[in-house]
Amino acid sequence: MQRHVFFLSDGTGITAETLGNSLLTQFEGLEFRKVTLPFIATPEKARATVDYINHVGDSDGARPLVFSTTTNDAARAVLRECKGLFIDLFDTYIHTLEQELGVPSTQAQGRAHGLADGSRYNARIDAMNYAMEHDDGQSTRDLSKAELILIAPSRCGKTPTTLYLALQHGIFATNFPLLEEDLEKPRLPTALQGLEDRLFGLTSDPERLAQVRNERRPGSRYASLAQCAFELRQAEQLYRRYNVPYVNSANMSIEEIAATVMQEKALRH
Amino acid sequence: MQRHVFFLSDGTGITAETLGNSLLTQFEGLEFRKVTLPFIATPEKARATVDYINHVGDSDGARPLVFSTTTNDAARAVLRECKGLFIDLFDTYIHTLEQELGVPSTQAQGRAHGLADGSRYNARIDAMNYAMEHDDGQSTRDLSKAELILIAPSRCGKTPTTLYLALQHGIFATNFPLLEEDLEKPRLPTALQGLEDRLFGLTSDPERLAQVRNERRPGSRYASLAQCAFELRQAEQLYRRYNVPYVNSANMSIEEIAATVMQEKALRH
Repeated sequence: MQRHVFFLSDGTGITAETLGNSLLTQFEGLEFRKVTLPFIATPEKARATVDYINHVGDSDGARPLVFSTTTNDAARAVLRECKGLFIDLFDTYIHTLEQELGVPSTQAQGRAHGLADGSRYNARIDAMNYAMEHDDGQSTRDLSKAELILIAPSRCGKTPTTLYLALQHGIFATNFPLLEEDLEKPRLPTALQGLEDRLFGLTSDPERLAQVRNERRPGSRYASLAQCAFELRQAEQLYRRYNVPYVNSANMSIEEIAATVMQEKALRH
Repeated sequence: MQRHVFFLSDGTGITAETLGNSLLTQFEGLEFRKVTLPFIATPEKARATVDYINHVGDSDGARPLVFSTTTNDAARAVLRECKGLFIDLFDTYIHTLEQELGVPSTQAQGRAHGLADGSRYNARIDAMNYAMEHDDGQSTRDLSKAELILIAPSRCGKTPTTLYLALQHGIFATNFPLLEEDLEKPRLPTALQGLEDRLFGLTSDPERLAQVRNERRPGSRYASLAQCAFELRQAEQLYRRYNVPYVNSANMSIEEIAATVMQEKALRH
Protein backbone atom coordinates (compact mmCIF):
# COMPACT_ATOMS: atom_id res chain seq x y z
CA MET A 1 0.00 0.00 0.00
CA GLN A 2 1.32 3.42 -0.85
CA ARG A 3 0.14 6.59 0.77
CA HIS A 4 0.36 10.02 -0.77
CA VAL A 5 1.44 13.15 1.05
CA PHE A 6 0.40 16.49 -0.42
CA PHE A 7 1.97 19.84 0.32
CA LEU A 8 -0.44 22.63 -0.62
CA SER A 9 0.06 26.37 -0.70
CA ASP A 10 -0.98 29.57 -2.38
CA GLY A 11 2.74 30.40 -2.38
CA THR A 12 5.77 28.24 -3.14
CA GLY A 13 4.83 25.38 -0.84
CA ILE A 14 8.14 25.58 1.02
CA THR A 15 6.57 26.09 4.44
CA ALA A 16 4.14 23.20 3.90
CA GLU A 17 6.99 20.94 2.79
CA THR A 18 9.18 21.93 5.73
CA LEU A 19 6.38 21.41 8.23
CA GLY A 20 5.23 18.10 6.75
CA ASN A 21 8.66 16.65 6.16
CA SER A 22 9.76 17.50 9.70
CA LEU A 23 6.78 15.66 11.13
CA LEU A 24 7.23 12.69 8.82
CA THR A 25 10.90 12.21 9.81
CA GLN A 26 9.43 11.00 13.10
CA PHE A 27 7.89 7.97 11.41
CA GLU A 28 10.46 5.48 10.18
CA GLY A 29 9.97 2.60 7.82
CA LEU A 30 6.93 4.08 6.12
CA GLU A 31 7.02 4.98 2.43
CA PHE A 32 5.24 8.06 1.20
CA ARG A 33 4.73 9.51 -2.26
CA LYS A 34 5.16 13.23 -1.87
CA VAL A 35 3.55 15.80 -4.15
CA THR A 36 3.90 19.56 -3.83
CA LEU A 37 1.16 21.68 -5.37
CA PRO A 38 2.10 25.37 -5.16
CA PHE A 39 0.29 28.56 -6.17
CA ILE A 40 -3.28 27.45 -5.28
CA ALA A 41 -4.60 30.98 -4.99
CA THR A 42 -8.24 30.71 -6.05
CA PRO A 43 -11.27 28.61 -5.00
CA GLU A 44 -11.32 27.16 -8.55
CA LYS A 45 -7.77 25.90 -8.29
CA ALA A 46 -8.58 24.64 -4.79
CA ARG A 47 -11.56 22.71 -6.17
CA ALA A 48 -9.42 21.05 -8.85
CA THR A 49 -6.83 20.22 -6.19
CA VAL A 50 -9.45 18.58 -3.96
CA ASP A 51 -10.72 16.48 -6.87
CA TYR A 52 -7.17 15.35 -7.58
CA ILE A 53 -6.41 14.48 -3.96
CA ASN A 54 -9.66 12.54 -3.62
CA HIS A 55 -8.96 10.65 -6.82
CA VAL A 56 -5.45 9.72 -5.69
CA GLY A 57 -6.73 8.66 -2.27
CA ASP A 58 -9.33 6.39 -3.86
CA SER A 59 -6.72 4.82 -6.16
CA ASP A 60 -4.27 4.25 -3.31
CA GLY A 61 -6.88 2.88 -0.96
CA ALA A 62 -5.12 4.97 1.71
CA ARG A 63 -6.10 8.36 3.06
CA PRO A 64 -3.64 11.00 1.87
CA LEU A 65 -1.88 13.26 4.35
CA VAL A 66 -2.37 16.90 3.39
CA PHE A 67 -0.14 19.65 4.78
CA SER A 68 -1.43 23.07 3.81
CA THR A 69 -0.29 26.64 4.36
CA THR A 70 -2.89 28.37 2.25
CA THR A 71 -3.56 31.77 3.77
CA ASN A 72 -6.50 32.64 1.55
CA ASP A 73 -9.69 31.83 3.52
CA ALA A 74 -11.81 31.06 0.44
CA ALA A 75 -9.27 28.66 -1.03
CA ARG A 76 -8.67 27.02 2.34
CA ALA A 77 -12.39 26.50 2.92
CA VAL A 78 -12.47 24.42 -0.26
CA LEU A 79 -9.24 22.51 0.45
CA ARG A 80 -10.44 21.61 3.94
CA GLU A 81 -13.19 19.50 2.34
CA CYS A 82 -10.77 17.02 0.77
CA LYS A 83 -10.87 13.43 1.98
CA GLY A 84 -7.25 13.54 3.20
CA LEU A 85 -6.08 14.12 6.76
CA PHE A 86 -5.98 17.92 6.52
CA ILE A 87 -3.32 19.69 8.56
CA ASP A 88 -3.31 23.43 8.01
CA LEU A 89 -0.83 25.73 9.67
CA PHE A 90 -3.17 28.72 9.60
CA ASP A 91 -6.30 26.88 10.74
CA THR A 92 -4.31 25.64 13.70
CA TYR A 93 -2.39 28.65 14.88
CA ILE A 94 -3.55 31.92 13.38
CA HIS A 95 -6.44 32.44 15.81
CA THR A 96 -4.14 31.90 18.80
CA LEU A 97 -1.70 34.44 17.43
CA GLU A 98 -4.43 36.97 16.61
CA GLN A 99 -5.57 36.76 20.22
CA GLU A 100 -2.06 37.06 21.62
CA LEU A 101 -1.07 39.96 19.36
CA GLY A 102 -4.43 41.70 19.55
CA VAL A 103 -4.64 42.36 15.79
CA PRO A 104 -6.29 40.50 12.92
CA SER A 105 -4.11 38.65 10.39
CA THR A 106 -3.87 40.06 6.88
CA GLN A 107 -4.32 36.83 4.90
CA ALA A 108 -1.67 38.11 2.51
CA GLN A 109 -0.68 35.35 0.11
CA GLY A 110 2.74 33.93 -0.63
CA ARG A 111 4.45 36.18 1.88
CA ALA A 112 6.73 33.62 3.48
CA HIS A 113 8.95 33.04 0.44
CA GLY A 114 8.07 35.94 -1.83
CA LEU A 115 9.62 39.34 -2.36
CA ALA A 116 7.79 40.94 0.56
CA ASP A 117 10.94 42.14 2.25
CA GLY A 118 12.80 43.70 -0.67
CA SER A 119 15.90 44.90 1.13
CA ARG A 120 16.44 41.56 2.81
CA TYR A 121 15.96 39.88 -0.54
CA ASN A 122 18.53 42.07 -2.27
CA ALA A 123 20.96 41.41 0.56
CA ARG A 124 20.67 37.69 -0.14
CA ILE A 125 21.42 38.16 -3.84
CA ASP A 126 24.36 40.46 -3.09
CA ALA A 127 25.69 37.96 -0.58
CA MET A 128 25.37 35.14 -3.09
CA ASN A 129 27.22 37.07 -5.79
CA TYR A 130 29.93 37.89 -3.29
CA ALA A 131 30.23 34.24 -2.25
CA MET A 132 30.45 33.09 -5.87
CA GLU A 133 33.13 35.62 -6.78
CA HIS A 134 35.31 34.87 -3.77
CA ASP A 135 34.81 31.14 -3.56
CA ASP A 136 37.89 29.14 -2.62
CA GLY A 137 40.20 32.15 -2.51
CA GLN A 138 39.57 33.00 -6.21
CA SER A 139 39.75 36.65 -5.32
CA THR A 140 41.29 38.28 -2.28
CA ARG A 141 39.82 41.61 -3.34
CA ASP A 142 37.22 42.85 -0.85
CA LEU A 143 37.97 39.99 1.51
CA SER A 144 37.55 42.46 4.35
CA LYS A 145 33.89 42.91 3.33
CA ALA A 146 33.19 39.38 4.53
CA GLU A 147 31.34 38.94 7.81
CA LEU A 148 32.56 35.37 7.87
CA ILE A 149 35.47 33.55 6.25
CA LEU A 150 35.36 29.78 6.47
CA ILE A 151 38.77 28.14 6.38
CA ALA A 152 39.63 24.47 6.00
CA PRO A 153 41.59 21.98 3.97
CA SER A 154 40.01 21.06 0.64
CA ARG A 155 36.65 19.19 0.74
CA CYS A 156 35.61 19.78 4.35
CA GLY A 157 32.39 21.57 3.29
CA LYS A 158 33.47 25.21 2.91
CA THR A 159 31.78 25.98 -0.40
CA PRO A 160 28.31 24.51 0.20
CA THR A 161 28.15 26.04 3.67
CA THR A 162 29.20 29.45 2.34
CA LEU A 163 26.60 29.42 -0.42
CA TYR A 164 23.92 28.23 1.97
CA LEU A 165 24.65 31.05 4.43
CA ALA A 166 24.56 33.60 1.62
CA LEU A 167 21.45 32.31 -0.16
CA GLN A 168 19.35 31.53 2.91
CA HIS A 169 20.54 34.11 5.38
CA GLY A 170 22.07 36.94 3.33
CA ILE A 171 25.32 36.59 5.25
CA PHE A 172 28.39 38.01 3.51
CA ALA A 173 30.30 34.79 3.77
CA THR A 174 33.24 33.51 1.85
CA ASN A 175 35.85 30.83 2.22
CA PHE A 176 39.54 30.40 1.85
CA PRO A 177 41.46 27.17 1.35
CA LEU A 178 44.28 26.07 3.61
CA LEU A 179 46.96 24.80 1.25
CA GLU A 180 49.80 22.47 2.01
CA GLU A 181 52.29 25.33 2.43
CA ASP A 182 49.97 26.98 4.98
CA LEU A 183 49.48 23.72 6.82
CA GLU A 184 53.12 22.70 7.05
CA LYS A 185 54.12 25.49 9.39
CA PRO A 186 51.11 25.86 10.19
CA ARG A 187 50.57 29.53 9.46
CA LEU A 188 47.59 31.68 8.54
CA PRO A 189 47.60 32.57 4.81
CA THR A 190 48.84 36.14 4.32
CA ALA A 191 45.52 37.28 2.84
CA LEU A 192 43.77 36.42 6.10
CA GLN A 193 46.11 38.18 8.49
CA GLY A 194 44.26 40.96 10.29
CA LEU A 195 40.92 39.27 9.60
CA GLU A 196 41.19 36.76 12.45
CA ASP A 197 37.86 37.86 13.97
CA ARG A 198 35.95 36.74 10.86
CA LEU A 199 37.42 33.25 10.71
CA PHE A 200 35.72 29.97 11.43
CA GLY A 201 37.46 26.66 10.80
CA LEU A 202 36.20 23.31 9.61
CA THR A 203 37.83 20.01 10.23
CA SER A 204 36.77 16.44 9.49
CA ASP A 205 37.69 12.83 10.17
CA PRO A 206 40.59 11.50 8.07
CA GLU A 207 38.55 8.50 6.84
CA ARG A 208 35.60 10.65 5.80
CA LEU A 209 37.82 13.21 4.07
CA ALA A 210 39.75 10.51 2.21
CA GLN A 211 36.46 9.04 1.03
CA VAL A 212 35.20 12.39 -0.30
CA ARG A 213 38.54 13.19 -1.96
CA ASN A 214 38.73 9.75 -3.54
CA GLU A 215 35.46 10.41 -5.32
CA ARG A 216 37.15 13.38 -7.01
CA ARG A 217 40.69 12.10 -7.54
CA PRO A 218 40.74 8.35 -7.00
CA GLY A 219 44.01 6.90 -5.76
CA SER A 220 45.80 10.26 -5.60
CA ARG A 221 48.20 11.38 -2.89
CA TYR A 222 45.67 14.19 -2.27
CA ALA A 223 43.05 11.56 -1.36
CA SER A 224 45.33 9.29 0.69
CA LEU A 225 44.48 8.66 4.32
CA ALA A 226 47.96 9.79 5.40
CA GLN A 227 47.66 13.12 3.57
CA CYS A 228 44.15 13.73 4.91
CA ALA A 229 45.21 12.92 8.47
CA PHE A 230 48.22 15.25 8.16
CA GLU A 231 46.18 18.17 6.79
CA LEU A 232 43.45 17.85 9.41
CA ARG A 233 45.91 17.58 12.28
CA GLN A 234 47.80 20.64 11.09
CA ALA A 235 44.59 22.59 10.43
CA GLU A 236 43.37 21.93 13.96
CA GLN A 237 46.72 23.06 15.29
CA LEU A 238 46.42 26.24 13.23
CA TYR A 239 42.89 26.91 14.55
CA ARG A 240 44.07 26.56 18.12
CA ARG A 241 47.16 28.71 17.59
CA TYR A 242 45.11 31.60 16.18
CA ASN A 243 42.08 31.06 18.45
CA VAL A 244 39.86 30.29 15.48
CA PRO A 245 36.64 28.55 16.57
CA TYR A 246 36.07 25.34 14.62
CA VAL A 247 33.85 22.33 14.27
CA ASN A 248 34.25 18.81 12.93
CA SER A 249 31.91 18.61 9.94
CA ALA A 250 32.36 14.89 9.23
CA ASN A 251 28.88 13.93 10.40
CA MET A 252 27.07 17.23 9.91
CA SER A 253 24.76 18.48 7.17
CA ILE A 254 25.27 21.87 5.55
CA GLU A 255 22.35 23.15 7.62
CA GLU A 256 23.89 21.89 10.86
CA ILE A 257 27.28 23.42 10.05
CA ALA A 258 25.56 26.70 9.14
CA ALA A 259 23.49 26.76 12.33
CA THR A 260 26.60 26.06 14.40
CA VAL A 261 28.64 28.79 12.70
CA MET A 262 25.86 31.37 13.00
CA GLN A 263 25.43 30.64 16.68
CA GLU A 264 29.17 30.65 17.43
CA LYS A 265 29.83 33.88 15.50
CA ALA A 266 26.51 35.58 16.42
CA LEU A 267 25.75 36.07 12.72
CA ARG A 268 21.97 35.95 12.54
CA HIS A 269 20.58 39.16 11.08
CA MET B 1 7.32 47.95 23.42
CA GLN B 2 9.35 45.23 21.79
CA ARG B 3 8.38 41.61 21.75
CA HIS B 4 10.77 38.72 21.34
CA VAL B 5 10.16 35.70 19.17
CA PHE B 6 12.15 32.55 19.94
CA PHE B 7 12.71 29.65 17.59
CA LEU B 8 13.73 26.56 19.57
CA SER B 9 14.89 23.19 18.41
CA ASP B 10 17.03 20.20 19.27
CA GLY B 11 18.19 20.39 15.66
CA THR B 12 19.12 23.37 13.49
CA GLY B 13 15.97 25.39 14.21
CA ILE B 14 15.15 25.69 10.50
CA THR B 15 11.69 24.14 10.81
CA ALA B 16 10.83 26.32 13.82
CA GLU B 17 11.97 29.42 11.93
CA THR B 18 9.99 28.47 8.85
CA LEU B 19 6.86 27.75 10.87
CA GLY B 20 7.09 30.91 12.94
CA ASN B 21 8.14 33.27 10.18
CA SER B 22 5.36 32.06 7.90
CA LEU B 23 2.78 32.77 10.57
CA LEU B 24 4.28 36.14 11.46
CA THR B 25 4.15 37.35 7.82
CA GLN B 26 0.40 37.49 8.42
CA PHE B 27 0.80 40.28 10.95
CA GLU B 28 1.95 43.54 9.45
CA GLY B 29 3.28 46.58 11.20
CA LEU B 30 4.47 44.72 14.26
CA GLU B 31 8.15 44.60 15.13
CA PHE B 32 9.66 41.48 16.58
CA ARG B 33 13.13 40.63 17.83
CA LYS B 34 13.83 37.15 16.58
CA VAL B 35 16.23 34.74 18.27
CA THR B 36 17.01 31.22 17.12
CA LEU B 37 18.29 28.80 19.74
CA PRO B 38 19.30 25.52 18.09
CA PHE B 39 20.62 22.22 19.47
CA ILE B 40 18.60 22.16 22.73
CA ALA B 41 18.91 18.43 23.18
CA THR B 42 18.89 17.93 26.95
CA PRO B 43 16.58 18.91 29.82
CA GLU B 44 19.50 20.94 31.27
CA LYS B 45 19.84 23.03 28.12
CA ALA B 46 16.06 23.34 28.03
CA ARG B 47 16.06 24.64 31.61
CA ALA B 48 18.68 27.30 30.78
CA THR B 49 16.64 28.25 27.71
CA VAL B 50 13.47 28.68 29.78
CA ASP B 51 15.31 30.88 32.28
CA TYR B 52 16.58 33.03 29.41
CA ILE B 53 13.16 33.35 27.75
CA ASN B 54 11.51 34.26 31.05
CA HIS B 55 14.19 36.83 31.77
CA VAL B 56 13.78 38.43 28.33
CA GLY B 57 9.99 38.45 28.66
CA ASP B 58 10.22 40.20 32.03
CA SER B 59 12.61 42.83 30.61
CA ASP B 60 10.42 43.44 27.56
CA GLY B 61 7.21 43.59 29.55
CA ALA B 62 5.72 41.57 26.69
CA ARG B 63 5.11 37.86 26.52
CA PRO B 64 7.54 36.24 24.07
CA LEU B 65 6.27 34.08 21.22
CA VAL B 66 7.99 30.71 21.25
CA PHE B 67 7.99 28.42 18.21
CA SER B 68 9.45 25.04 19.02
CA THR B 69 10.16 21.86 17.10
CA THR B 70 11.91 19.96 19.85
CA THR B 71 11.25 16.26 19.33
CA ASN B 72 12.78 15.10 22.59
CA ASP B 73 9.92 14.64 25.09
CA ALA B 74 12.02 15.41 28.16
CA ALA B 75 13.43 18.65 26.73
CA ARG B 76 10.01 19.71 25.44
CA ALA B 77 8.37 19.10 28.82
CA VAL B 78 10.77 21.65 30.29
CA LEU B 79 10.45 24.17 27.45
CA ARG B 80 6.65 24.02 27.65
CA GLU B 81 6.88 25.60 31.11
CA CYS B 82 8.32 28.89 29.84
CA LYS B 83 6.23 32.03 30.27
CA GLY B 84 6.03 32.64 26.51
CA LEU B 85 3.17 31.69 24.20
CA PHE B 86 4.41 28.19 23.44
CA ILE B 87 3.67 26.81 19.98
CA ASP B 88 5.17 23.40 19.36
CA LEU B 89 4.85 21.56 16.08
CA PHE B 90 5.12 18.15 17.71
CA ASP B 91 2.80 18.86 20.62
CA THR B 92 0.21 19.96 18.09
CA TYR B 93 0.37 17.34 15.41
CA ILE B 94 2.35 14.26 16.34
CA HIS B 95 -0.51 12.52 18.17
CA THR B 96 -2.86 13.06 15.22
CA LEU B 97 -0.29 11.58 12.87
CA GLU B 98 0.45 8.63 15.17
CA GLN B 99 -3.26 7.82 15.17
CA GLU B 100 -3.60 8.18 11.41
CA LEU B 101 -0.47 6.16 10.61
CA GLY B 102 -1.06 3.59 13.35
CA VAL B 103 2.54 3.64 14.58
CA PRO B 104 4.34 5.54 17.35
CA SER B 105 6.75 8.33 16.47
CA THR B 106 10.45 7.75 17.06
CA GLN B 107 11.33 11.07 18.73
CA ALA B 108 14.58 11.00 16.77
CA GLN B 109 16.32 14.33 17.12
CA GLY B 110 17.51 16.68 14.44
CA ARG B 111 16.22 14.52 11.63
CA ALA B 112 14.63 17.22 9.51
CA HIS B 113 17.87 18.94 8.50
CA GLY B 114 20.52 16.43 9.46
CA LEU B 115 22.30 13.74 7.51
CA ALA B 116 19.57 11.14 8.02
CA ASP B 117 19.10 10.52 4.31
CA GLY B 118 22.71 10.13 3.20
CA SER B 119 22.12 9.42 -0.47
CA ARG B 120 19.82 12.40 -0.85
CA TYR B 121 22.38 14.54 0.93
CA ASN B 122 25.23 13.46 -1.34
CA ALA B 123 23.03 14.17 -4.36
CA ARG B 124 22.62 17.76 -3.14
CA ILE B 125 26.38 18.23 -2.79
CA ASP B 126 27.04 16.67 -6.21
CA ALA B 127 24.37 18.90 -7.74
CA MET B 128 25.90 21.98 -6.13
CA ASN B 129 29.38 21.16 -7.38
CA TYR B 130 27.96 20.59 -10.84
CA ALA B 131 26.09 23.92 -10.73
CA MET B 132 29.23 25.77 -9.59
CA GLU B 133 31.43 24.23 -12.29
CA HIS B 134 28.98 24.93 -15.10
CA ASP B 135 27.68 28.31 -13.97
CA ASP B 136 27.06 30.80 -16.75
CA GLY B 137 28.34 28.57 -19.52
CA GLN B 138 31.82 28.29 -17.95
CA SER B 139 32.02 24.72 -19.10
CA THR B 140 30.00 22.97 -21.79
CA ARG B 141 31.49 19.65 -20.72
CA ASP B 142 28.82 17.31 -19.34
CA LEU B 143 26.06 19.77 -20.21
CA SER B 144 23.96 16.77 -21.17
CA LYS B 145 24.12 15.59 -17.53
CA ALA B 146 21.89 18.52 -16.56
CA GLU B 147 18.26 17.82 -15.76
CA LEU B 148 17.58 21.50 -16.22
CA ILE B 149 19.36 24.29 -18.08
CA LEU B 150 18.13 27.79 -17.32
CA ILE B 151 18.66 30.25 -20.15
CA ALA B 152 18.26 34.02 -20.09
CA PRO B 153 20.00 37.29 -20.81
CA SER B 154 22.45 38.40 -18.13
CA ARG B 155 21.01 39.25 -14.65
CA CYS B 156 17.55 37.72 -14.93
CA GLY B 157 18.18 35.38 -11.97
CA LYS B 158 19.76 32.30 -13.57
CA THR B 159 22.61 31.78 -11.12
CA PRO B 160 20.78 32.14 -7.79
CA THR B 161 17.92 29.98 -9.02
CA THR B 162 20.31 27.30 -10.24
CA LEU B 163 22.22 27.19 -6.96
CA TYR B 164 19.00 27.15 -4.97
CA LEU B 165 17.63 24.19 -6.96
CA ALA B 166 20.90 22.31 -6.51
CA LEU B 167 21.42 23.06 -2.82
CA GLN B 168 17.82 22.65 -1.66
CA HIS B 169 16.50 20.04 -4.04
CA GLY B 170 19.53 18.17 -5.36
CA ILE B 171 18.49 18.96 -8.91
CA PHE B 172 21.28 18.75 -11.49
CA ALA B 173 20.67 22.25 -12.75
CA THR B 174 22.87 24.60 -14.65
CA ASN B 175 22.49 27.75 -16.67
CA PHE B 176 23.68 29.21 -19.90
CA PRO B 177 23.78 32.85 -20.91
CA LEU B 178 22.10 34.19 -24.03
CA LEU B 179 24.67 36.54 -25.52
CA GLU B 180 24.07 39.35 -27.95
CA GLU B 181 25.06 37.22 -30.93
CA ASP B 182 22.52 34.56 -29.89
CA LEU B 183 19.83 37.16 -29.38
CA GLU B 184 20.28 39.04 -32.62
CA LYS B 185 19.07 36.21 -34.84
CA PRO B 186 17.66 34.93 -32.38
CA ARG B 187 19.16 31.44 -32.34
CA LEU B 188 19.80 28.79 -29.72
CA PRO B 189 23.52 28.67 -28.75
CA THR B 190 25.21 25.70 -30.46
CA ALA B 191 26.05 24.05 -27.13
CA LEU B 192 22.34 23.79 -26.32
CA GLN B 193 21.16 22.26 -29.56
CA GLY B 194 19.75 18.82 -28.96
CA LEU B 195 19.11 19.66 -25.31
CA GLU B 196 15.86 21.56 -25.94
CA ASP B 197 13.89 19.35 -23.52
CA ARG B 198 16.02 20.51 -20.56
CA LEU B 199 15.63 24.21 -21.22
CA PHE B 200 13.66 26.74 -19.22
CA GLY B 201 13.81 30.45 -20.00
CA LEU B 202 13.73 33.52 -17.80
CA THR B 203 12.70 36.97 -18.88
CA SER B 204 12.19 40.19 -16.95
CA ASP B 205 10.85 43.71 -17.29
CA PRO B 206 13.21 46.14 -19.07
CA GLU B 207 13.03 48.68 -16.20
CA ARG B 208 13.80 46.06 -13.58
CA LEU B 209 16.65 44.56 -15.60
CA ALA B 210 18.17 47.98 -16.29
CA GLN B 211 18.06 48.73 -12.55
CA VAL B 212 19.83 45.47 -11.65
CA ARG B 213 22.45 45.90 -14.38
CA ASN B 214 23.08 49.52 -13.39
CA GLU B 215 24.07 48.36 -9.94
CA ARG B 216 26.83 46.33 -11.56
CA ARG B 217 27.93 48.57 -14.43
CA PRO B 218 26.46 52.04 -13.92
CA GLY B 219 25.78 54.04 -17.07
CA SER B 220 26.96 51.29 -19.44
CA ARG B 221 25.33 50.35 -22.73
CA TYR B 222 24.82 46.91 -21.12
CA ALA B 223 22.63 48.54 -18.46
CA SER B 224 20.71 50.89 -20.77
CA LEU B 225 16.95 50.57 -20.98
CA ALA B 226 17.12 50.22 -24.78
CA GLN B 227 19.61 47.34 -24.58
CA CYS B 228 17.63 45.57 -21.85
CA ALA B 229 14.37 45.94 -23.79
CA PHE B 230 16.05 44.59 -26.94
CA GLU B 231 17.56 41.56 -25.21
CA LEU B 232 14.35 40.61 -23.41
CA ARG B 233 12.22 40.97 -26.55
CA GLN B 234 14.62 38.80 -28.52
CA ALA B 235 14.92 36.25 -25.73
CA GLU B 236 11.14 35.85 -25.55
CA GLN B 237 11.06 35.41 -29.32
CA LEU B 238 13.74 32.73 -29.01
CA TYR B 239 11.77 30.91 -26.27
CA ARG B 240 8.67 30.87 -28.41
CA ARG B 241 10.51 29.73 -31.52
CA TYR B 242 12.06 26.74 -29.74
CA ASN B 243 9.02 26.02 -27.53
CA VAL B 244 11.03 26.74 -24.38
CA PRO B 245 8.73 27.33 -21.39
CA TYR B 246 9.56 30.58 -19.63
CA VAL B 247 8.54 32.93 -16.87
CA ASN B 248 8.96 36.63 -16.13
CA SER B 249 11.09 36.78 -12.99
CA ALA B 250 10.88 40.57 -12.47
CA ASN B 251 8.67 40.31 -9.39
CA MET B 252 9.54 36.83 -8.22
CA SER B 253 11.82 35.57 -5.46
CA ILE B 254 14.34 32.80 -6.11
CA GLU B 255 12.01 30.44 -4.27
CA GLU B 256 9.06 31.40 -6.46
CA ILE B 257 11.06 31.00 -9.67
CA ALA B 258 12.34 27.63 -8.43
CA ALA B 259 8.84 26.41 -7.50
CA THR B 260 7.55 27.49 -10.91
CA VAL B 261 10.35 25.76 -12.80
CA MET B 262 10.04 22.55 -10.80
CA GLN B 263 6.31 22.41 -11.41
CA GLU B 264 6.58 23.22 -15.11
CA LYS B 265 9.38 20.71 -15.77
CA ALA B 266 8.14 18.06 -13.28
CA LEU B 267 11.52 18.12 -11.53
CA ARG B 268 10.70 17.27 -7.93
CA HIS B 269 12.55 14.15 -6.81
